[in-house]
Amino acid sequence: MTPQQPDRRNFIKKASLGSFLSLSLTEIVLSSFTEEKVSKIMLKKDDIILFQGDSITDSGRLKTETGANQSRLLGNGYPFMASSDLLMQHPTKNLKIYNKGISGNKVYQLAERWDTDCLELKPNVLSIMIGVNDFWHTLTSNYTGTSDTYRKDYKALLERTKQSLPDVKLIIGEPFAVTGVKAVTEKWYPAFNEYRQAAKEMAASYNAAWIPYQTVFDNAQKLAPGSYWTTDGVHPTLAGARLMATAWLETVKG
Amino acid sequence: MTPQQPDRRNFIKKASLGSFLSLSLTEIVLSSFTEEKVSKIMLKKDDIILFQGDSITDSGRLKTETGANQSRLLGNGYPFMASSDLLMQHPTKNLKIYNKGISGNKVYQLAERWDTDCLELKPNVLSIMIGVNDFWHTLTSNYTGTSDTYRKDYKALLERTKQSLPDVKLIIGEPFAVTGVKAVTEKWYPAFNEYRQAAKEMAASYNAAWIPYQTVFDNAQKLAPGSYWTTDGVHPTLAGARLMATAWLETVKG
Repeated sequence: MTPQQPDRRNFIKKASLGSFLSLSLTEIVLSSFTEEKVSKIMLKKDDIILFQGDSITDSGRLKTETGANQSRLLGNGYPFMASSDLLMQHPTKNLKIYNKGISGNKVYQLAERWDTDCLELKPNVLSIMIGVNDFWHTLTSNYTGTSDTYRKDYKALLERTKQSLPDVKLIIGEPFAVTGVKAVTEKWYPAFNEYRQAAKEMAASYNAAWIPYQTVFDNAQKLAPGSYWTTDGVHPTLAGARLMATAWLETVKG
Repeated sequence: MTPQQPDRRNFIKKASLGSFLSLSLTEIVLSSFTEEKVSKIMLKKDDIILFQGDSITDSGRLKTETGANQSRLLGNGYPFMASSDLLMQHPTKNLKIYNKGISGNKVYQLAERWDTDCLELKPNVLSIMIGVNDFWHTLTSNYTGTSDTYRKDYKALLERTKQSLPDVKLIIGEPFAVTGVKAVTEKWYPAFNEYRQAAKEMAASYNAAWIPYQTVFDNAQKLAPGSYWTTDGVHPTLAGARLMATAWLETVKG
C-alpha cells in the first residue's frame, strides 16, 4: 500500500472491508475512478491508437517489425489486452493500434524518439504512461532528474504533441508503485508521490482522460497481496496487467 | 460463413439484421450460446486449469520453460486472454493455469503426449479444442484419418482422462472454420461439419461445457468479414482470439 495517499484513505472511509469483499474485481477497478474526474474519450472510425511508455507498456513487444493490430508487436501486457477488447468490440471502426513503449524509458527518452515513435504515426488517440523510472532510476542508476524535471519535460512533450496533433485525444496513466514488493521500499516515499501528482496535473492541464492506476492497485490489494498483482512492485503480473487493461478500457466510449 | 449449418440458419431466423447490428460483440458472443445447452463449470479454490489443443491454443507459447500463470508460457491467444481475466477476477482462488497446446496436433497426437501434458498435471479443469487439423490435413498432408477416426480417438482420450481424473471438469471447444478466407474453401464441406458434430457429441457424452465457436464466428461475421476475425479461415486474428476468450469465459462461473 502507498503511504500518504489521501485518495485511498478516503476510499477506505467510504467502503467498509465487508462491503469491499463482495465486489467483483471489475467493480473494484470502476470504484477507483469514483473520486477522480472521469473523463472519457470517444472512439471514431479510422482512429489510430498509440500506446506509449516504458517497460510496463513495452511488455516484451517485438521491435524488429512494424504494423498495426499484430499480437507480437503489442507485447503481452495491458496494451495487448486492451487492444484485443477494442478490436473485438469495434469491428466496423477500422482501428489501427500500435504499441511503442520501450523498457527503461523516462520522459526525456520519450521526447528523444517522439517524432518517429509518435508524431509520424499521426495517432488520433494517444495513451501515455511514464514516470516510474524518472523516480526509480534516482535510486538505482544515479539519475539526477527530479520531479520538477519530470513535470517540465512532460509538459514540453505534451505541448509539442498538441502543436503537431491539435485534435489528438489524450489518455494519461498514473505512474504507480506497490510498496513492500521487492523493489518498492519506504525509500520511495514521499518523493515518488510527487511524480504521481505531476502526471495528474498533466492530465488536468491537457484535458486528458486520467487512469488512476495507483488507486486501482491499492484497491486490488484489499483482495490479494501486492505480490499477486506485481512481480517487483513496478511491473504487473498477468492478473495486474488485466487489471490495468480493465481500467484503461474504462476511459474509452463509443 | 459455413454452409449447411442449421444452428446459424435458426439464429438468423430469430435475429433480424437490424436488431443484430445494435448488439455489442459481447452480446453476440452470448447469443451464440442460446441454442445450445449452456453448461457451466464452477471454479474452486486451488483449481489447476489446463488448456489443450492445436495451434489455435498453442498461439506461440514459449515451450522451453514450464510454470503456471506466466504470460509467455500461455501464448498470445484465447488461453492467455481468458487466463488474465480469470486471474484478475479470482485473486483469492490460488488458480494455477497451464497451456499445453501444440501447433499442428490432431487428436491422436494429443493422446501420444497425454500422460505428460495432461494427466501428470492433474488438472481440475481441462479445456480441449481439437479437430481442425484432423480434417484439414486430409486435404493438405495426405492424412488418411476420417471423422470416425477422430470420434473414436477423441472418445478414447476422454475415457482415459476420466479414469485417471474422475472429477475433472471438462470444457470442449468446437472446431470451427471461416469459409471463404484463404485456406477454407467449399472443399471443406460437408465433411468438416462431421468433425464439429463429433466434438459436440463428446461434450454431451462426457458432460462437458460446450463452446459453440462456429456459431460465435458465424455471428461475428454479421458485423465484419471473416478476414477480420481469422487470418486464414482457421487461425484467429487478435479480434478473433478475444472473441474466443469471451466465449470461453462464458462457460465458467464462481
